[in-house]
Amino acid sequence: MQELTISLNSKSRTPLYEQIYNYIKQDIQTGRIKAKEKLPSSRALSAYLEVSRSTVDLAYEQLLSEGYLESVPCKGYYACQIEALYRFRKETAAEALAPSREESACDYDFTPNGIDLDSFPYGTWRKITRNILLDDNKDLFQLGDAKGEWELRAAITSYLHQARGVNCRPDQVIIGAGNDYLLLLLSAVLGTDYRIAMETPTYKHAYKIFEQLGYSLCTVPMDASGMQVSGLERSGAGIAYVMPSHQYPLGIVMPIKRRLELLSWAAREEGRYIIEDDYDSEFRYKGKPVPALKGTDQREKVIYLGTFSKSIAPAIRISYLVLPEGLLKDCEKALLKFSSTVSRIDQMTLYQFLKEGYYERHLNRMRAIYGRKHELLLRELKKMSGFCRVTGEHAGVHLLVEFTNGMTEKEGIKRARAEGVKVYPLSEYEIGNSAAVHGQTHQSSTVILGYATLSEEELAEAAGRLRRAWGTVVPK
Amino acid sequence: MQELTISLNSKSRTPLYEQIYNYIKQDIQTGRIKAKEKLPSSRALSAYLEVSRSTVDLAYEQLLSEGYLESVPCKGYYACQIEALYRFRKETAAEALAPSREESACDYDFTPNGIDLDSFPYGTWRKITRNILLDDNKDLFQLGDAKGEWELRAAITSYLHQARGVNCRPDQVIIGAGNDYLLLLLSAVLGTDYRIAMETPTYKHAYKIFEQLGYSLCTVPMDASGMQVSGLERSGAGIAYVMPSHQYPLGIVMPIKRRLELLSWAAREEGRYIIEDDYDSEFRYKGKPVPALKGTDQREKVIYLGTFSKSIAPAIRISYLVLPEGLLKDCEKALLKFSSTVSRIDQMTLYQFLKEGYYERHLNRMRAIYGRKHELLLRELKKMSGFCRVTGEHAGVHLLVEFTNGMTEKEGIKRARAEGVKVYPLSEYEIGNSAAVHGQTHQSSTVILGYATLSEEELAEAAGRLRRAWGTVVPK
Repeated sequence: MQELTISLNSKSRTPLYEQIYNYIKQDIQTGRIKAKEKLPSSRALSAYLEVSRSTVDLAYEQLLSEGYLESVPCKGYYACQIEALYRFRKETAAEALAPSREESACDYDFTPNGIDLDSFPYGTWRKITRNILLDDNKDLFQLGDAKGEWELRAAITSYLHQARGVNCRPDQVIIGAGNDYLLLLLSAVLGTDYRIAMETPTYKHAYKIFEQLGYSLCTVPMDASGMQVSGLERSGAGIAYVMPSHQYPLGIVMPIKRRLELLSWAAREEGRYIIEDDYDSEFRYKGKPVPALKGTDQREKVIYLGTFSKSIAPAIRISYLVLPEGLLKDCEKALLKFSSTVSRIDQMTLYQFLKEGYYERHLNRMRAIYGRKHELLLRELKKMSGFCRVTGEHAGVHLLVEFTNGMTEKEGIKRARAEGVKVYPLSEYEIGNSAAVHGQTHQSSTVILGYATLSEEELAEAAGRLRRAWGTVVPK
Repeated sequence: MQELTISLNSKSRTPLYEQIYNYIKQDIQTGRIKAKEKLPSSRALSAYLEVSRSTVDLAYEQLLSEGYLESVPCKGYYACQIEALYRFRKETAAEALAPSREESACDYDFTPNGIDLDSFPYGTWRKITRNILLDDNKDLFQLGDAKGEWELRAAITSYLHQARGVNCRPDQVIIGAGNDYLLLLLSAVLGTDYRIAMETPTYKHAYKIFEQLGYSLCTVPMDASGMQVSGLERSGAGIAYVMPSHQYPLGIVMPIKRRLELLSWAAREEGRYIIEDDYDSEFRYKGKPVPALKGTDQREKVIYLGTFSKSIAPAIRISYLVLPEGLLKDCEKALLKFSSTVSRIDQMTLYQFLKEGYYERHLNRMRAIYGRKHELLLRELKKMSGFCRVTGEHAGVHLLVEFTNGMTEKEGIKRARAEGVKVYPLSEYEIGNSAAVHGQTHQSSTVILGYATLSEEELAEAAGRLRRAWGTVVPK
């Protein structure tokens, strides 16, 4: 008994049994208690330490379960050979080396990539997650369906039907951890022997991913209705990547006539597909939401890509594909080779969020919040109509501001920055040197203002600064 | 006031304000209250309903925030045009159609793919997740680092150093949602112009993924030390895929001599790499854990693939790659094009789980639990030494049983099944017709017994049945 150096602190927040556990574990680790050495019986130790026997039993059980002790029936507890046990020292040095995050030195950031997280229903999300974990449903920790949980896919099917006018079966829906992943998965099952046609400017991130994956890429001229189908036909592309409900970054809503032309293009040849990236169609402030192109896809030519990044939060990493029936049939076997990338707990949390009506309420609240910001910013920008004009105001959470006083995009960004306001260049979204090719002039004089992350007060103040920054330029 | 049909139920579990909210929302949705119609003031309505004014205010605020009402200053509340609002009906029909999961009709399933989830520390995981959500750290809902959270990568670096003998920097670690995803990502950044050499039998899932991605594949003969390096040299492969700590499914632990030969092979030519899949090295029951090959990778030739699927739970979907320095330099830009596939909440939960020592304790407990099952099953199988012998017993959570009485794999599976026990064919892990080529005979007479998911009682009972099933075969 003398070997055991246990001095208990009954005032500590650490329970007594854990103190005993820690002392014995340390003694075994340091070799003070040697392998095969017998430990005092729990009765003897509890008497010696003046604690209840169950306290000692609890400590012994813990040590037993972690392999520090072994119990020999009718004999007692013995210390184990512990060289094979895991013992992780705390390495705090590494943590101290964490790279410092660069702080951007601006007061108001019109980033087009953010969302308003102040309005995210944390409480609800937390409650649902907690309940799912409470259910103690250990199945959720086993590997789930490669396509994603059936319940979630059914709920998304129902959402698409009601909110986006899309009719599909849960079987056509594939859940994945973000759009990038789903494009990667698509390339793995479709192969990369496709030429993909894109608009310019476009969602450059997707362009870079297609480029990385080795696709042949081309750009097709746009007009006020979006991608020109004559140009698409000439391009020799097999896949057209479009955002018909709200083109990014120009904000064009593709009219029905162009949609039908696009669908006809796809139907004209076997193996042609349209990728519809429906990334932020949820937020439209006047009139009904524009239905998805997929909703009129009678010939099963549209690969629909949806995400909860914009409408819930970027970090939840849940996106989904809806595959056309024919394509699904051809590539289902390949698809099922890849295990799901989204944890089942996250999937079931989202499922409950959809099912219990929280998503509907959240979307309506966000629509109202973004709508007010949208209106405020438009009103403020109208005051600047002497030197700029607004486009892309039909949906989404950003606007385009084109300077009409001869100011360049670069100059506009620089002047805004001098006032502590960060706005973004449209030219960043251009592919290649297409501005020169298509003779469009707006690219070099247009900036992007995303307003999701700024409050109404901030928007008003920031807009005032922009007016100061831009209003004093003398027209050429 | 007469138009409002509100009858409150003070005994309901639904709060009064929510009842009022529901009534008015429904009246607006059904058109009983028309767009632009004025609603009673909250004072009037509260008097009429005999509830407090704050109750009505709460209901009005909710309706306001979701866009059903608008407030006109100094005038009052008006119903909105609601055609643009989201209204999801509950579609229960679809849910009723959920495919029924096929029940396998066996009493004991020796699946090699499961893990023992009864011992998963749900409580701890839940507590950590809850605390992370409580922190109300809204940053966690924004998109994180493409490689994964720095803190988690640092914690993994520290774990690899201490438990696997691997020295690397957090910068070399890339977090991803599962091994399949990481192999997909690797193919996207490395390209697929590689010939990959694999063992046979091997982890067939990886083989199928490489095949799907369009890699040229070849098999290299194995001996008792694992992949034969002479064969590898002849194969013309640029990448060797191996599991040196515990080959799946044969359970071979690659000795140091073979490891060094393998590393020499990789060093002999520019652009050669070894993928080390270290999928279940955590569980070894005798002696120290076998260090990872990556630990002796002086020439930076080993791409290390680790996972928490086996050691924590398959459904948490967190795996990681450790890239060699040179490769990291070459492909970092491409890597950063792909957003992280793991939610930051999950990453931070795992980080805390590692940092607070829970992972260490969990591993030691699982090691003890699996160790007892391992021992019990070995003991039971020893009773059958008259007609079978055991291999692959050095680590992991499965064993191989080779019939020595002339019984084929197929027959063994069939007989076990007749006793209500499911065992698995080794031949499933073979690539092509290599059994015939290499003249190995064990493949056709060997079955796999995974013991992670069965309790000790179940293992004892199941082993008894196997003895009955297999012991009565008359040797040829």
